[in-house]
Parts: sequence; C-alpha cells; structure tokens
Amino acid sequence: MSVDFDIIRTARAILHVTDLERSRDFYIKGLGLVETESDENTIYLRGLEEHVHHSLVLKKADAPHVEVTSYKVRSDADLDALAAMFEKHGMKTKWLEEGSQHAIGRALRVQDVSGIPLEFFAKMDTVERLLQRYDLYQGAKAQRIDHFNNMVSDVEAAYDFYTKELGFSCSEYTATEEDKIWAAWIHRKPSVHDVAFMNGEGPRVHHVAYWLSDPMSLIHGCDVLAALGYAENIERGPARHGLSNAFFLYLRDPDGHRIELYNGDYLTSDPDFKPIRWELNDKRRQTFWGAAAPDCWFNEASTVLDVHTGKPLETVAGKLKQAKPIFIV
Amino acid sequence: MSVDFDIIRTARAILHVTDLERSRDFYIKGLGLVETESDENTIYLRGLEEHVHHSLVLKKADAPHVEVTSYKVRSDADLDALAAMFEKHGMKTKWLEEGSQHAIGRALRVQDVSGIPLEFFAKMDTVERLLQRYDLYQGAKAQRIDHFNNMVSDVEAAYDFYTKELGFSCSEYTATEEDKIWAAWIHRKPSVHDVAFMNGEGPRVHHVAYWLSDPMSLIHGCDVLAALGYAENIERGPARHGLSNAFFLYLRDPDGHRIELYNGDYLTSDPDFKPIRWELNDKRRQTFWGAAAPDCWFNEASTVLDVHTGKPLETVAGKLKQAKPIFIV
Amino acid sequence: MSVDFDIIRTARAILHVTDLERSRDFYIKGLGLVETESDENTIYLRGLEEHVHHSLVLKKADAPHVEVTSYKVRSDADLDALAAMFEKHGMKTKWLEEGSQHAIGRALRVQDVSGIPLEFFAKMDTVERLLQRYDLYQGAKAQRIDHFNNMVSDVEAAYDFYTKELGFSCSEYTATEEDKIWAAWIHRKPSVHDVAFMNGEGPRVHHVAYWLSDPMSLIHGCDVLAALGYAENIERGPARHGLSNAFFLYLRDPDGHRIELYNGDYLTSDPDFKPIRWELNDKRRQTFWGAAAPDCWFNEASTVLDVHTGKPLETVAGKLKQAKPIFIV
Amino acid sequence: MSVDFDIIRTARAILHVTDLERSRDFYIKGLGLVETESDENTIYLRGLEEHVHHSLVLKKADAPHVEVTSYKVRSDADLDALAAMFEKHGMKTKWLEEGSQHAIGRALRVQDVSGIPLEFFAKMDTVERLLQRYDLYQGAKAQRIDHFNNMVSDVEAAYDFYTKELGFSCSEYTATEEDKIWAAWIHRKPSVHDVAFMNGEGPRVHHVAYWLSDPMSLIHGCDVLAALGYAENIERGPARHGLSNAFFLYLRDPDGHRIELYNGDYLTSDPDFKPIRWELNDKRRQTFWGAAAPDCWFNEASTVLDVHTGKPLETVAGKLKQAKPIFIV
Repeated sequence: MSVDFDIIRTARAILHVTDLERSRDFYIKGLGLVETESDENTIYLRGLEEHVHHSLVLKKADAPHVEVTSYKVRSDADLDALAAMFEKHGMKTKWLEEGSQHAIGRALRVQDVSGIPLEFFAKMDTVERLLQRYDLYQGAKAQRIDHFNNMVSDVEAAYDFYTKELGFSCSEYTATEEDKIWAAWIHRKPSVHDVAFMNGEGPRVHHVAYWLSDPMSLIHGCDVLAALGYAENIERGPARHGLSNAFFLYLRDPDGHRIELYNGDYLTSDPDFKPIRWELNDKRRQTFWGAAAPDCWFNEASTVLDVHTGKPLETVAGKLKQAKPIFIV
Repeated sequence: MSVDFDIIRTARAILHVTDLERSRDFYIKGLGLVETESDENTIYLRGLEEHVHHSLVLKKADAPHVEVTSYKVRSDADLDALAAMFEKHGMKTKWLEEGSQHAIGRALRVQDVSGIPLEFFAKMDTVERLLQRYDLYQGAKAQRIDHFNNMVSDVEAAYDFYTKELGFSCSEYTATEEDKIWAAWIHRKPSVHDVAFMNGEGPRVHHVAYWLSDPMSLIHGCDVLAALGYAENIERGPARHGLSNAFFLYLRDPDGHRIELYNGDYLTSDPDFKPIRWELNDKRRQTFWGAAAPDCWFNEASTVLDVHTGKPLETVAGKLKQAKPIFIV
Repeated sequence: MSVDFDIIRTARAILHVTDLERSRDFYIKGLGLVETESDENTIYLRGLEEHVHHSLVLKKADAPHVEVTSYKVRSDADLDALAAMFEKHGMKTKWLEEGSQHAIGRALRVQDVSGIPLEFFAKMDTVERLLQRYDLYQGAKAQRIDHFNNMVSDVEAAYDFYTKELGFSCSEYTATEEDKIWAAWIHRKPSVHDVAFMNGEGPRVHHVAYWLSDPMSLIHGCDVLAALGYAENIERGPARHGLSNAFFLYLRDPDGHRIELYNGDYLTSDPDFKPIRWELNDKRRQTFWGAAAPDCWFNEASTVLDVHTGKPLETVAGKLKQAKPIFIV
Repeated sequence: MSVDFDIIRTARAILHVTDLERSRDFYIKGLGLVETESDENTIYLRGLEEHVHHSLVLKKADAPHVEVTSYKVRSDADLDALAAMFEKHGMKTKWLEEGSQHAIGRALRVQDVSGIPLEFFAKMDTVERLLQRYDLYQGAKAQRIDHFNNMVSDVEAAYDFYTKELGFSCSEYTATEEDKIWAAWIHRKPSVHDVAFMNGEGPRVHHVAYWLSDPMSLIHGCDVLAALGYAENIERGPARHGLSNAFFLYLRDPDGHRIELYNGDYLTSDPDFKPIRWELNDKRRQTFWGAAAPDCWFNEASTVLDVHTGKPLETVAGKLKQAKPIFIV
C-alpha cells in the first residue's frame, strides 16, 4: 500500500470513433457533456463540474478502439516514480513529452498487467467550470468522469497489481463459489471506484462512467436520449446495482463504446472500511431490483490499442469459467 | 356520448388473495397504501390522498381472482339509469343494497360486454385524508387509484360499448396494420384513462394502477420493495411508456395480481382532444426508452369472477392474432 | 350548481408587457414555455403538454396590465347560454367574433362580479403537442396552464357568483375568526382550482399558474432562472402550501406580473368531497414548512383592464380588514 | 501543506441537549438518523451509509453546548504527531485513553486556535451499514456526516492554522472589499469542506451538516419535519448556495443547535484546483436563487466547552466589522 507516488483519480479516456458528428450529437445533446474545443479530427469534452480541459477525447478513426484510459497524479515527479516501478516489473513505458498532446503536460503510457492501455499525467489546462451555468445544462447533465470498468482474463492478477503496486484500495468485490475474485471495485479517490475489473474476454474496456448529481438527471436523460432517437442505445437500466448501490444506466455510443451514467455511491475514505463481498450468483449484486442484464452486457466491450504499436490487442478468454451470473430461482 | 348518468372515476377493485398477512406487508410497507380497516377475512386499503374509506379490498379466498372492478357515479339515481341501460342491452344486473357491503352504499354489478365484472356505486364512507401526514408515508407512497387495464378478446366491442353506451372518451389507442384497434385507453376523469383494454386472452384483469405524485417515489419504491425482499415481484420497469407518457413500474403481488405504479399523465379535459394513434409495432409505444416488456407481461393476467355465480369466468383467445408487438430492428 | 353551460378549464391569459424581448427570454428560457407564433406586437406561448395554440399571450403595451383571463367552454352554444346568464344579472357582455382574434373562435368577454376581465371561448387552433420532445425542454419545463388567482375586495361575492352562477366547486377555503371567507379555491376541472380569490385591493390578478410535472423541474427551474440572471425575480419559495398541498414557486416576470410554478395537487372529482377549511392565522396554511411570505406577495398584483373601454380598472380595498395572516408565535 | 499526520475526515460531534426524548424524535424521525445505541444519558446516532458506530452523540445536560467536534485520522500514530504539533505551538492537549469513551479508541482533545474544541481519533467500532435497508429509511434520510461550520472572531488565523499546520486545502472563500477572508471552506476529504469558518462572535459552532443522497430527500424531509410539528425548526431554505453549489436546508434542533441538510457538492481532489473567491456582498454567494438568510442565521450559534475545564467558553466579537452581507439592490 505504501507507494512512492500519488494517483489522484480517473482522469480521461481517449476513444476512437468513426463519425465525429454522430458522436458529438450523442455526447453533447444526449449526455450533456460540454465541448471545450475541437478540430476536424478530435473533440475534447468535459463534464459540467470539471474545471479541467477535458475528460473525454473523441478521435476520428477507422475503427472504434480505446486508445488509452488515463489517471491524474499529484505531481510531475510521481510520473518518474511510476515509470521506475513499471520498469522494475519489466513493463515497457512510453513518454509523451509536454506539447505532444493538446492541453496536457508530460504523460507516461504503459500497458498494464492485463493489457489495458494506461496513461498518467499531472497537468492539464484549466478552463471555466460551468457547474453553475444551469442555463447550459443539456440531456443527462453528465457532471464528471467517475471510473473505468475493464474486462480482463485474470482479475486476481489485476487486483494484486493495482492494490499492491499502484496503491488502490478495494471497496467491494464479487467472489465465485470457489472463493476466486470474479470482479473487483477499487479506488484512489474515496468513492466506490476509479476502476473495476470483471472476468471475461480481455483486455477490453467494458465502460467509461460519468457521475450525475441526482437520480432525476438520469431519468430525464433517458427521455432526452429517446427523443433524440437514441432509445436503441439504451442497453440496460435504469436500475440500482446492489454492488456499489449505484443508480445506473448503460448506453452504447454510436460506435458501440459503452458509457455508464452513474449516481449514488458512498464515501470510502476510512482506512478501516472492510471491502464488501458479494456472491457472483446473488441476484441483488448486479441488479438490486431483480432484472437481469442482457447477454450483450456481459459479452461485448471495446478493444484496446497497444500503447507502443497503436495496433489493437488480441484478447483471450476470462480465466474463470463462469461468464456471467447464473440465477437459480 | 350523451348518456343519462355520470360515471365519475375508477373507484376500487376487490381482489381475492390467499394469504392476508403476505398481502398486507406487500401493499402497506411496499406500496405505501394505508389500512383503513380490516378483519380476519378482509383488508380495506386506500391511497395517501384518498378521503374515502378504500380503493382496494383484499378478501381472503382459496384462489387469486378479481371479484369486481368498480366505478363511482355522481348520484344514486345514476345507478338506476345505468341498470336500465344494461338491461336494455340484455345484460343481467345485480343489486347489492346499502348495508350488504361494508362502507359503501347501494351498488350495481354487471358483467360488461367483454365479461369483466363491473360495479357502480355513488356513496362511500369518508375518512381522514392523510395527504399531509408525511410522517406516515411508506414505500412507494401510492397516492390514489388511477385505472384498470383489462385483457379482452374483442377490444373493438369493448371500445364501442364504453364510448357509446357508458360515455367514456378515448385519449390514445393502438392500431394494427389492418387498422384494427388492438388496445384503447379511455377515460371519464380528465386523465389518460380510467380503464384500458388490450387484445388477448380474456376476460382477465391485466392490472390495477395507482398514481404516484412524482418519479422519485417510484424509484424509492423500487428500493424499498427490494429491501423488503420483493425484487422478484418487480416485473417490468421502471421506464416510460410512449403511449400515455407514464413513468411506470409493474409489480406482481404475492398472489400474482399485477399492480402498476404510475406517474406522469396529462390533462385530457378538452372535448376537441384528438385520440393519439400508435402503431402496434412502434417500439416507442410500449417503452419510449426502448426496452421490450417480458413475455409474461403479455401472457399473464388475473381471472375474473361471474358477478352472479361467483365462479371464475372461462377465457377465450384475443380476436386479433398478434399477441404482442413485433419489432423488426 | 345546475347551469346551462359547461366551463371546461382555465385556458389562457393575455398579459400586456412593455418589452417583448425581455419577456420572451424569461418565459421561454426561464419557464420553458414554447413559442407557437409571434409578430412584432405579440408572442403566443404554450406549455409542453398543450395541444392548443397557446395558453399565454404577451402583447406589447405601454403598461403591464392584464387584458383578460380566459376559460374554455365545451361548445359554441355554451357561449350563448353564458351571455344570457350574465345579461340576466345586468352584466354587459362583449362579443369578439371568430377571426377577430388570432387562433381562437368566437369569444365572449365580460367583467365579473369583482371586476376581473373574463373571456370564454370554445375553439382554439390545435398544434403539435411537444410532450415527448424532451430534447426541447428548457428551464422549469412549464407543462400546462393551471389556474388564476385574483385579489378582490369581496371574496364572498365572488365565491357565490362562481359557485352558484358559473358552476364551480370549492376544494379549500380560508376563513377568518368571524367565519368570513377570506380566500377560496374553486374548480371546474377536477384539480384544486381553476381560479382562486383572495381578500385584498382589487380587482387585480395576483398570479397566473403553470403546472409542472414533478418537483425536480421546479428546483432545476430555480437554478436555470438564477443562471440566466433572474434570481431577483424569485419572490417566494420553493416551499409547500398547506392549502392545496402544492409545491410552489412565485416569480415576478420582467414587468412584475406574478407567475406561479406549481406541482402537487390532488383529484377533486368526487361530488361528495368536502371543502377543506383553513384558519387564516394557521401558519401551515400558507407555508406548510413554516416560512412566511414576504409582504410584497400580499400587497402587489397586476391591474386589469375594462373589457369595454380597454382602460385600467380602479381598485378598492379588501372588504375584510385583515390584509394578511398574523402569526402569534 | 506537508504534515506528519493524515486527517481523514469530519467524524462526529458531541452535542449537549436538555431533553433526550425530544432530541431522539427530531433526529431519528425527522432527520432519519439511525440509533446505534443509547442509555439514559446518551444517544449514539449514525447516518444511513455509515459503517461506524456513530457520527453524532447526544448527551443529556443542563444546557445545550457543543462538547467537541471530532475528526478521524489514519492511524493511532497520527495522534501522537498531532499532539506534538499542538504542543509545539503551546496548545495544551488532553488524552482520553481507549475505554474512557464508548465505542472509540484513544482520543486527543485540544482547543483550536479559535477556541473551537477539537477531538482526533483513529478507531471507532464498526457496525452494520444500513445503506441498502431502504425499508428503514425515515424523514430526510440523512446519509453521512459532512462538515462543521464554526463562527470565529479571526477567520484568517483559523485559515492559516488549518491550512499550514493541519494540512487542509481551501475550496472556496469569501472576501471583503478590503481583501480580508470573511469566511473559508476547507477540506481533507475531496469535497467542498470538512469545516468552514465564518467571521462572527466566537468561538461558536454554527452548524453540523449531514449529507443527503439527492435533492428529493431534502424536499421530502421538509414535509416529514412539518408533519411531525417541526415547521418552526426550519430556519432557512430549501435553496441553493452559490458558494459550494449545495442544495441546503438549515434546521434548529429542539435545543437550538443548528443542523444543515446538504446535497450537491463537487469533487475537489485535484491539487491544482484553485480556490473560488466570492465577494461578501455578492447576493448569489449565500443564496444562488436570491432569498436572503434571516438575521438569526448570522447571529445565533452554539456555545462550546473548554476541553480541559468542561466550562462554556466566553466569546468575542468577529474581528471584521461586517456581521453579514449587505445587498444594495
């Protein structure tokens, strides 16, 4: 737990999308994100309370991959400490010097133990926070980036690396009948998670989540999305997760990237908070109110890119055989 | 439309249940209904704004049938006019004199053109209204009875009888590709409906609906129901209907009777309001946000009793072949 | 109660405003009303669920008076019956033939017993209802016109005329210690009111109310209004009235006309519903939660025009001496 | 900023109350706190998400003082480091060994630079978290303790000590025209605050705040409080603060202690987050929607006890002359 750097929080995702205009409509009018800046190849988006330049980058590309999932660290020196740690474990790092990426400082990229492309940086340009510009609120009023959920073949390996080497704490986890960790929710900021890992074909990014300030923003968001023609993009919910207690909605963006809208959560600041264990086949775990997730929610996720080659990573099946919960009613 | 009596609104349902204690827990702690009175065989329940003795009667019985669905009329004389009309059409009426039923005045019962057991009455005892006793609110905070939904084999026959002979107006309806009415929402009070008819095996009562004052009561109701162990009783929703614009939740009570919690609606007072037509296969009709209803929602409903013999009525299949919407995506 | 015509509901108000652009911004961006049509002298606005051309007319004028408050009747013949009744009481009527006013049919105008300018009509052009165009929702999402509140010098005279001659029913009223009616809430549609009368300097229109679909629209409306620079226009609330149980907000438009945003209410369809009596000095009557209304709320209101001369009517003091509640804590 | 200990968060308050039964009713039925344990002299309360024994202690006493405001630290060793720091500044500390207080470990008490009684501890017994026992939710559904607000005579002195010696960060502050800090909001957990200081007669505790999960819990809380007879205890709100963006309600408990119910907030995790400056006389600062706070809100607060003598501390006037904002409209 004692590490030489301080990862602050989930900071941004870079998604490759095939049609910037379709994505702009979905993310801005539907989710309510704010466009900070854009050009013909890129759109920079942020949530309503975010005082930083962006938390989501949409890049025009031929295929809808996830380029990287990023975390903010306390200081530039933390980046060097992180690089040293990764290299000690034989993980090849890549530096993107300040100036090479728009609006952020020096960045460190690496493929994590599961193959998920990570990025760390300490500095991002700040912009006007629009939290009290309620007259500009749209759609689901997405307020800030909250977490990533990654589908990986070996959850325990990811869990060990993040908790022992990166300094994350576990809030809740799902175990199989054989006491294996099937999924884990881990955090740096004192919420339920900054990132979760779920057993399955990976490495893939299952979803990127934005936090909403209240449940009615989620209900109104559904109405606006449907009115805009995105009813088919609502994949699951609204409902409440037993695990995390979140009131949630899962959407598929026009390229199939999964976005979660998320409200609820609780404070996990206490060092003596005991991780909550859920049994995989406990129906209330996935949906407190009882409705099962559709199969596509368990099977589909976004492929990720190699931080060095820029090529999509091949995936392997989840190590634990059970691909989704089985409910014997 | 010009009739000799004035039906005011949906007034009460009498449900036969097999275990009064299980039902009491579900309806009072889960839905938030108030118990006005009860004895070993009967529980009388009302919504939080209701100033009348009850809107739901649970009667202990061997099997879970619907005894009757009741409407309030303006005056006692309206009952005689209604009886005359039914008899003119060769429909056998039954009188229950004042005193024969607890807390209500003289009542007229008849099997409607579809076989649904109807009751009309003008008087019910009044009780303290608890609308502002917020300290007594529980669960989903069910506020008042809103409507019935009946599954019948010939929707057009029901539609014609209710609009021409009983003075109902249509707010919305669903048509097949052959321009047949597959379902209709009709009202006396100026809301979307007091009763709806849906093509299917009938006569059966599909659901009884209670109105909630706001969407958050429905969300909180889901949480309370789940915490009480009723997650399995949540059959569909929460979601929004395209048709009626209602934010809805469908529950099955411990005996399988379906209860809808309902918020939204709009004012239908204007005589020149044009009924809204929906195509049966329009996905947004049933769920504006896109999620399909489970098959059980289309197939299962409560059988009804003969008002004269007290025996369950046999059912016949819906006249229109299409049993549920088909979506070609 | 038995009258020869059928008044359906509160239908529209015509407000004179001094700056159309300022008003447009307030009513559309702030309240969320939809502009159906406009020209250089007039803006026609409607609520999100309204299928008729408008419920509010803003007319450019030198001073901010209320030209008329209008009610919809069932049929054109009802207008003749109404005219006959008014003339029987020696009240001079004025006809505006179809074509003389935009988008509505033949209209009857008259000064009521208190001097309030009334208008009745049966027909208005219908337009596309935007209830499910959630993508167009703005500000407080005003959904439909609900009621007028008039300040008059003799509430009992108004009460008697409306209940005996116009067929209104009373839902709630406020009485002084001497058993005089200080204020009354009366309705045609089965809600708490289509119009209320309050003792005070009159005839004046105290406010025009729009109904919202849920309490969060009111909270979000406050935020949007404040962000747009209208914090000073929020005069009272949000809070809950004991009387009517409404969750309310009172605004002053850029000319000082008072608008209420209103959510809550309950069904008053039953002929045996007993009007609820409140004591004038019961604190919970005006604000269930305890905060007193500011003096301006009791003292200020919009002057009204003479339907025949178009001139502002002189006002006289309220007949009952007590101008506002007194709370002895 | 670099300190030798880690203060985690606001943890508990100990309030002296004169009538335990009256307080129990207010805090449990009204605010929705959960009673963990009690005896004839003490009640231990916690919020719905809290996994620790309590966050509020009510102690029966002759007069309603605040005994102490407490913070949780990461480990027991942090207590020794804190004690050393206080003693270095000549501030006399007091130890309460494990076992001397119910349900918590070793505690350090000290009067802070303003005279506010502080307590620090690392361990508290854990109990069942009731977050998903929605069937037990009551009243305003208070979810967790959030912050203290202290009225002190020298805000800048307090600000300097907390930020330089205790490691707090500032999220927002209010400045006078002379650039003096009139009030400051500072935090350890990454929310707007764990404690705020406001210029005025002090040392006094202005309020203890509980966080709610959503705005509708606050609205429903008002209704329940009013129904229970606590309308007079609602001092200010509901409304939104410009500063902190909180949707708030201020209550006075039966002894006059002020409690804030609080929803909104935003994430302040980023080290580069720039404190937001508000001008004291900016109307939107205190109430974004425009309504001014009552004078009692600025003048009244709870006196505090000396941690060594147990006697009430004498108070002195605020150093800055302006006692409250002045709005020149």
